Amino acid sequence: MLSVVLLGTGNVAHHLFHAFSKSKDIAVHQVYGRNSEALKDFEPKVSTTTSIAKIAEADMYILAVSDSSVTEVSKTLRGKKGTVVHTSGSVPMDAIKSKQRGVFYPLQTFTKGNEVDFREIPICIEAEGEENRLLLETLGKSISNHVYRISSAQRKKLHLCAVLVNNYPNHLYHMAHEICAENKIPFHLLFPLILETVNKIRHLSPKEAQTGPARRNDIVTMQQHISQLQDPLQQKIYQLLSESIKALYEKEL
Amino acid sequence: MLSVVLLGTGNVAHHLFHAFSKSKDIAVHQVYGRNSEALKDFEPKVSTTTSIAKIAEADMYILAVSDSSVTEVSKTLRGKKGTVVHTSGSVPMDAIKSKQRGVFYPLQTFTKGNEVDFREIPICIEAEGEENRLLLETLGKSISNHVYRISSAQRKKLHLCAVLVNNYPNHLYHMAHEICAENKIPFHLLFPLILETVNKIRHLSPKEAQTGPARRNDIVTMQQHISQLQDPLQQKIYQLLSESIKALYEKEL
Repeated sequence: MLSVVLLGTGNVAHHLFHAFSKSKDIAVHQVYGRNSEALKDFEPKVSTTTSIAKIAEADMYILAVSDSSVTEVSKTLRGKKGTVVHTSGSVPMDAIKSKQRGVFYPLQTFTKGNEVDFREIPICIEAEGEENRLLLETLGKSISNHVYRISSAQRKKLHLCAVLVNNYPNHLYHMAHEICAENKIPFHLLFPLILETVNKIRHLSPKEAQTGPARRNDIVTMQQHISQLQDPLQQKIYQLLSESIKALYEKEL
Repeated sequence: MLSVVLLGTGNVAHHLFHAFSKSKDIAVHQVYGRNSEALKDFEPKVSTTTSIAKIAEADMYILAVSDSSVTEVSKTLRGKKGTVVHTSGSVPMDAIKSKQRGVFYPLQTFTKGNEVDFREIPICIEAEGEENRLLLETLGKSISNHVYRISSAQRKKLHLCAVLVNNYPNHLYHMAHEICAENKIPFHLLFPLILETVNKIRHLSPKEAQTGPARRNDIVTMQQHISQLQDPLQQKIYQLLSESIKALYEKEL
């Protein structure tokens, strides 16, 4: 049985707490947060504290705090024996100021109230020394079927990729959502297309899967599209993305 | 029983032919194509011709040809009694030079060899007159559970949306795919995140679902990401998309 103290009260902390609660190999002893209001959701289920001085002893301290707080919070845990890990995609492991340290990065987007199947989420681990690595592997496997050893350098790239495949497509969905609303078109008409876009890249590379006016350099259609966008920033986004696609397939045309 | 002649031999023609073949309400009498080589795939299953003069009589002529050929091909069918429809997202109905005309636009991306479930594909129809509309509705319902009446003006917007939610996210997947390959990271690590991005917008608007550095105006992370991209065009794409996201949430921060 691995004992854990969770530091943080945001989305990642909530989802991790929920996932650990289901595992019989992990015991969350305590949740720490600066804000007593934010701790209330945890209180019926686990001991909580707003005081660094009162943080309990545990095998592992998991920092689910903002990127900029990782170093500061880790310093307050210097006296502890347990391993200190953070959960961030973009912070290097050595931002943690403890000898026993590591990273436990679940590669997923977490939204409040939206439950996700943790067993399918890739957990990217990195550790100082073999012993900590084994500990993190145990922790990872207790909640997920997919645990990967990923270095700080790789994780930095993965985090960039996460923005490219999550935040940016979502923003393009938003642009389409607005256009549909303005033209009285139900947005859900686009769902089968959105799903098929994702399904295709299970067995084709995105490069092979591409279709559309930019790939075939259909200038008339692209100009029609740009003229339909009202926001100059969105026009530029359309233009640059189509340019980038054109450049990729130029040799084939 | 509705008789159909299919004009075209590309991806849309193939997928439509396959879908109609499964329906007991539709009989594809003939497939026309300029290129006899491209017709070979159809030959074991249906009569084919490369000659406009030999096009058979039918209730409906479906043009699955390139956007720029719609008018020209439709002119050659002026002597026919049947209704002439095209399948394009971006071409207005009146590009068809027949009195009996309409549009039959399946809102999906079609790739050779990748079967799709046509019953889930939204079919956007538009017709000249009530009689043609009923005909197109019958045709649509014979292969799909989702038939919508969409005007030429709406369809133009939908086609733009299709590029925004399909081609551009797919290009962002390609960018991530390249970064993963360069850094020896298995691309499939990103699948659960990609899927969750899509799942979220089933019950949240894309605006509500957004997360990430641009939404929270995390300048340090965004600059780190831009400096990791090597292609200046990709750097610009990152910059503009993050600017556009920032602008959307500015008031909330």
